[in-house]
Amino acid sequence: MALVVQKYGGSSVADGEKIKNVARRVVEAREKGDEVVVVASAMGDTTDELIRLARQVSPEPQERELDALLSTGEIVSSTLLAMALANLGYKAVSLSGAQAGIETDASHSRARILRIEPKRVVEELERGNIVIVAGFQGITQDMDITTLGRGGSDTTAVALAASLKAKVCQIYTDVEGVYTADPRLVPEARRLEEIAYEEMLELATYGAKVMHARAVELGEVYNMPILVASSFSDKPGTIIHGGVSMEVRNRVRGIAHDVDVAKITVVAVPDRPGIASAIFEPLAKANISVDTIVQNASINNITDLTFTVARGDLDKAMSLAKPVAKSVGARECVSDSTLAKVSIIGTGMQHTPGYAATMFRVLYEQGINIQLITTTEIRITCIIAEDRVGDAVRALHKAFELEQAGM
Amino acid sequence: MALVVQKYGGSSVADGEKIKNVARRVVEAREKGDEVVVVASAMGDTTDELIRLARQVSPEPQERELDALLSTGEIVSSTLLAMALANLGYKAVSLSGAQAGIETDASHSRARILRIEPKRVVEELERGNIVIVAGFQGITQDMDITTLGRGGSDTTAVALAASLKAKVCQIYTDVEGVYTADPRLVPEARRLEEIAYEEMLELATYGAKVMHARAVELGEVYNMPILVASSFSDKPGTIIHGGVSMEVRNRVRGIAHDVDVAKITVVAVPDRPGIASAIFEPLAKANISVDTIVQNASINNITDLTFTVARGDLDKAMSLAKPVAKSVGARECVSDSTLAKVSIIGTGMQHTPGYAATMFRVLYEQGINIQLITTTEIRITCIIAEDRVGDAVRALHKAFELEQAGM
Repeated sequence: MALVVQKYGGSSVADGEKIKNVARRVVEAREKGDEVVVVASAMGDTTDELIRLARQVSPEPQERELDALLSTGEIVSSTLLAMALANLGYKAVSLSGAQAGIETDASHSRARILRIEPKRVVEELERGNIVIVAGFQGITQDMDITTLGRGGSDTTAVALAASLKAKVCQIYTDVEGVYTADPRLVPEARRLEEIAYEEMLELATYGAKVMHARAVELGEVYNMPILVASSFSDKPGTIIHGGVSMEVRNRVRGIAHDVDVAKITVVAVPDRPGIASAIFEPLAKANISVDTIVQNASINNITDLTFTVARGDLDKAMSLAKPVAKSVGARECVSDSTLAKVSIIGTGMQHTPGYAATMFRVLYEQGINIQLITTTEIRITCIIAEDRVGDAVRALHKAFELEQAGM
Repeated sequence: MALVVQKYGGSSVADGEKIKNVARRVVEAREKGDEVVVVASAMGDTTDELIRLARQVSPEPQERELDALLSTGEIVSSTLLAMALANLGYKAVSLSGAQAGIETDASHSRARILRIEPKRVVEELERGNIVIVAGFQGITQDMDITTLGRGGSDTTAVALAASLKAKVCQIYTDVEGVYTADPRLVPEARRLEEIAYEEMLELATYGAKVMHARAVELGEVYNMPILVASSFSDKPGTIIHGGVSMEVRNRVRGIAHDVDVAKITVVAVPDRPGIASAIFEPLAKANISVDTIVQNASINNITDLTFTVARGDLDKAMSLAKPVAKSVGARECVSDSTLAKVSIIGTGMQHTPGYAATMFRVLYEQGINIQLITTTEIRITCIIAEDRVGDAVRALHKAFELEQAGM
């Protein structure tokens, strides 16, 4: 008997009826003859509601307490799902992250899984139970509750699947899979039947919301196939795996975009060693994630240093960068928060020239100005004005013929 | 430094503002120089809300899952209280029942505490923390979450106080203490400054809602003084302890009443050995609690057997009693669900005749018919018509001069 791990997101378990619907889907998987472990997210807006409650009693709740508070959301949905399964005549048992043996480090609100000791999960499966595990949470060696931060329940699911040697980890959500571009921007966008881990990683990192990069990375490390599909339909979804044949498909697999971009330029900074670290260390200490960094070639030992941050971090980043800029002799700091990123992604792009040139030409033909460019072997990202994102994505989708199925 | 355990009920932590109010009260206790451990109930109607949610997905939820679900209510209030305390500048940490070492048997929904291993509680106190423990819950040796059933958080508080050798266990609720009778029925009812464990036990068992008998019993076993007081005022409350002087006070301490009474009479049953067990064993197996049992003297070896149950159990009890009655040759089973219990209670009644006679005379003067009578050394209970409860309690309160402070 093979084992399947299924994960259901918050919108899939948002109320009693939806939980019963999920129970029916779990039963279907079980009736196919597989053992089933289910990872549940908190119902709908529960997590936001709990955070709101916390803010009522404290503007800055202790992270340890906030984690214990938030962890209750997934306990609630897990126990309800176990009840719904029993009501359909199936043996089911829910386990908290702690009971499921999910041990993490003590970084509250953004804990990393150190190891999984799934003894209890295995025992319950051997007793014939469908096992529901509360997502998003774990426990430290000191028996404190932690939460895994963004993408937490996906990470729980993939980590459990790896540790239980499941044949597949199925992520059920409110979209029908991974698309060549956001269907809200591009009506012709096509669902991909399969995608490679590294492509999905770039898509997720550069704006595709369907799955968090962190869980994809874990899937790649353990070579665990991940299916992304809708919990509201029976459409086949997209399988993320390592075995995608490189030659028989479109070279560009997908287009990601992200409008949460702000740019800071330190103007006329002396080009000497130590400047970059002087600017970026305070940002790192403030836990501000700096994305793209570009430094122009210097003229007379004077250069411009430009970098991007999430818009929510812009004010804080400016307040940290300004005094440093001044102290190192730069002229000024300027910012722009009306930007977006557009990326083309595909492992087929490796060692094949011409993709960048095509991308730049397409944007030029649309009259779209490129402000910054970054590339990896399988991704090319341009930073452009936010109000041109739709045009850019549609034009690129057409130019790379993504509406056509792979060869 | 002495240790105080405080317990706050659901109405005391019903919303963010009330939780902040509780935090201020906890701080006051701490500022008096004591170490403080707080036991929190779930906020307001949370437990009922969670049960409603469970019923949406299953008419008969598994008790194990229901316990795990309900346990989240006390985690939420405990973490919020810890946050509110930190916001006042005090170090505070919340612990689940499991983290606080509250080990129970595996009787889900009505678990009994087997032992408390308060190692973590002690460590957190030593670190200078105010420790908040989630009430109502524990963990089995197999690491399953249990709940303690009715009176659960009070029981958690008293058990923790005993295991930590606290100087007192303070139960804060929405009433100002233990009264000589229900103030809603008797405007002259007087708050008792103190009461003995065994008196409080009888009061609680026979209808006083202020505290569950189970927690009082635990207090008696461990000789832990229990203060019952309001979380919304600074009035002194009532202290329950073992050292109440027997001679210098009113002989009757309080009057309890309970309108949740139904009566079943098995009419004209042959008076021979084995009849009673034939009738009551099926009830016990069905988990129906039989309260008062009275068997009349038999005439020609024929007698009537009468007993009372909670009203919610009447239909089930009748359906179990009827076939047994028939099989043992009784004439019929009749029931009455419009009854109430009125009890006078006081350790001073022991070895002192005349209390029963006075009680019966007072009820007679009110024209109240007594249907059944039961007594212990410190309690006399009469079962009367429900619609006469107010009259009975007021008349007895007056006759035993309970509006006057003890001598």
